[in-house]
Amino acid sequence: MDIKQYMQDVGIRARAASRAMARADSATRNRALSLIAAAIVRDADLLRAANRRDLDAAAAAGLAPAMLDRLTLSDAAIATMVEGLTQIVALADPIGEISNMKYRPTGIQVGQMRVPLGVIGIIYEARPNVTVDAAGLCIKSGNATILRGGSEAIHCNRALAKLVAEGLAGAGLPQDAVQVIDTTDRAAVGALITMPEYVDVIVPRGGKGLIARLMEEATVPMIKHLDGICHVYIDAKADLAKALDIGFNAKCHRYGTCNTMETLLVARAIAPQVLPQLAERYLTKQVELRADPEALAILAGYPHLVAATEEDWRTEYLAAILSIKVVDGIDEAMDHINQYSSRHTEAIITEDYSDALRFLREVDSASVMVNASTRFADGFEYGLGAEIGISNDKLHARGPVGLEGLTSLKYVVFGHGEVRT
Amino acid sequence: MDIKQYMQDVGIRARAASRAMARADSATRNRALSLIAAAIVRDADLLRAANRRDLDAAAAAGLAPAMLDRLTLSDAAIATMVEGLTQIVALADPIGEISNMKYRPTGIQVGQMRVPLGVIGIIYEARPNVTVDAAGLCIKSGNATILRGGSEAIHCNRALAKLVAEGLAGAGLPQDAVQVIDTTDRAAVGALITMPEYVDVIVPRGGKGLIARLMEEATVPMIKHLDGICHVYIDAKADLAKALDIGFNAKCHRYGTCNTMETLLVARAIAPQVLPQLAERYLTKQVELRADPEALAILAGYPHLVAATEEDWRTEYLAAILSIKVVDGIDEAMDHINQYSSRHTEAIITEDYSDALRFLREVDSASVMVNASTRFADGFEYGLGAEIGISNDKLHARGPVGLEGLTSLKYVVFGHGEVRT
Repeated sequence: MDIKQYMQDVGIRARAASRAMARADSATRNRALSLIAAAIVRDADLLRAANRRDLDAAAAAGLAPAMLDRLTLSDAAIATMVEGLTQIVALADPIGEISNMKYRPTGIQVGQMRVPLGVIGIIYEARPNVTVDAAGLCIKSGNATILRGGSEAIHCNRALAKLVAEGLAGAGLPQDAVQVIDTTDRAAVGALITMPEYVDVIVPRGGKGLIARLMEEATVPMIKHLDGICHVYIDAKADLAKALDIGFNAKCHRYGTCNTMETLLVARAIAPQVLPQLAERYLTKQVELRADPEALAILAGYPHLVAATEEDWRTEYLAAILSIKVVDGIDEAMDHINQYSSRHTEAIITEDYSDALRFLREVDSASVMVNASTRFADGFEYGLGAEIGISNDKLHARGPVGLEGLTSLKYVVFGHGEVRT
Repeated sequence: MDIKQYMQDVGIRARAASRAMARADSATRNRALSLIAAAIVRDADLLRAANRRDLDAAAAAGLAPAMLDRLTLSDAAIATMVEGLTQIVALADPIGEISNMKYRPTGIQVGQMRVPLGVIGIIYEARPNVTVDAAGLCIKSGNATILRGGSEAIHCNRALAKLVAEGLAGAGLPQDAVQVIDTTDRAAVGALITMPEYVDVIVPRGGKGLIARLMEEATVPMIKHLDGICHVYIDAKADLAKALDIGFNAKCHRYGTCNTMETLLVARAIAPQVLPQLAERYLTKQVELRADPEALAILAGYPHLVAATEEDWRTEYLAAILSIKVVDGIDEAMDHINQYSSRHTEAIITEDYSDALRFLREVDSASVMVNASTRFADGFEYGLGAEIGISNDKLHARGPVGLEGLTSLKYVVFGHGEVRT
């Protein structure tokens, strides 16, 4: 098989399908989503059998248990896929919305209309549920999509692709609107991210390694984040109870997520009071603390205490490890964040009005919070209804990306025969 | 001079200055703009002298009269620069605006804040007024900027840079917030468009040749448009008077602009009626008509009539030339537009409600119009107050780009101690 030719054919078909999707009305797109959900319920046994083939191959290939776990399509995972589609149906249609129509002195009326981006390429790793989640968001937002899942999930993804195609056809939409790349050849990814004539944006979902690799080669723009080095700054005027709750939650609610706190900054004035009490909580989870000299002195006696190195400030642990630095106040905290943050999510804990406003305004990250856990930085928690990914970039979508991030605004002009003079 | 090192230093200084700009309040940024305007008025003689040096060098180098004309800083051009700055001062500050703050079931309140992008790189050709226009928009939107003007205008740009620096300093803002590249070495452009760590977006202003060159090398995202192959479609249900006025204005108001019509599509039912009358108007301007076979037959006898080739549908003439095609109706018109348009601006002339709505919804261009001249696609005409450029891309800004296109939205969260459970 000539992969380049195959991918170009996929691209041409996706581009053609995207025109039909952009024309389709809300009811038709929602009908497709409901039909896909029903087909998944009906064919749950077939999906499990396909998943079994993937799992057997993966086990034979010696995949790590954690990977096998992510690859498994459990009954709960199937139910969640179906529930996810149902929730997407219930979301308001973002497409066609016209806003800000205003008359100009010339007599024309100018505003903007929300329209689909066109063709979305999605590259992901083992989890087969992404196939359905991503297809659902793209169908809802009137886009065509090209899905490239992990090679470990190929059987399950093929089975899901058939059900998605059935749902699209049942609603009278082109089956090419959702294409699952039917090869495990890595060259397919290389082709997908370098055909801007057929693909409008790439959403990579996966680990830092995958995304860093894609960034080097991609000529299609990406909605992506590389890592989440998130900070919580406990201000001198912090409410102690809030500082303890958020300091613990932001680190320990889940270790492996990108919105987990990796570095804690504490104002010198409150450090001797707050750090020992926080350490008591961290100890219940055996969290390793990597501390700067001042914090080391305050935390002396904590059983999992290590001196922080420069490298720690740049590290996303994704584990029960936290780096801690004592700072003079909000200026030093923001300087540290500006230098080391991955611009994902930062929070200040304070009761001081002016410090709260300054932190919100001056910290240049996708999410900036006052008195809340960084763990809230997420499409569902923000009320987007669903999330296709998270962006640490500043152009186009920033932060959790929902349906709107898969759309663009074009200008529309209502005229009455006006000409320019 | 080591250009790479020089540009990196420029980048580092710009990044540092961007933090101060993001913190600066509206009054401070406006004061800088007013001081720059006053300095330009005061030093108009010096500017004209610097411009004279550029013009003498350009004349000695044998530059074409049209280029010399664009390079000339006339009294009118100076007055327009000053007036432009005054208008920018009067615009509402886009920075810091918080929108859509909504309570979530968890108790947190989530919304978005508009913030500067950071560092904007602007690459332009001869016109020295762009130095001041671009600096003004970047200062107003709280960004730092790196300006790289045409080498022909280097003396004038240096003189303007001094006045901009004076204005920034007078308002207490860092002079590095606007840096004019002080070398005519082309390697400086290559460096500027490949340092994403210091530059957030590049806005190229210039001809298709410049932009195509930049597109091949840039790793920094660009807000750009390559060309403007704009279409007007005269529907069977068009009002004849509107069709004649707009058909003439869209082509003949100005030939060299990107929003000028290059291809006219006419529904078969109305072509015999509208084309001869339009031709009468085009004849007053000696417009060359390149027609498909049907239009050729209808226009027989027109003195500047040529048979269109496939190449014509792909050509931006920027001249008194128009390609004309007779189509069956709106579907064929939209198919033609989808195939050949540069996605800049398209207009339909019709009194048919359903055709108007279909055209608005289904044509995938940055500006889509009903019964108005394509020449209206412009930041001033749309009410953006000023325009840094036009984008034919779908991500981030699309169509005329004003102050908002130089900003991004970050999420802000007001909490009260909430943690995720």
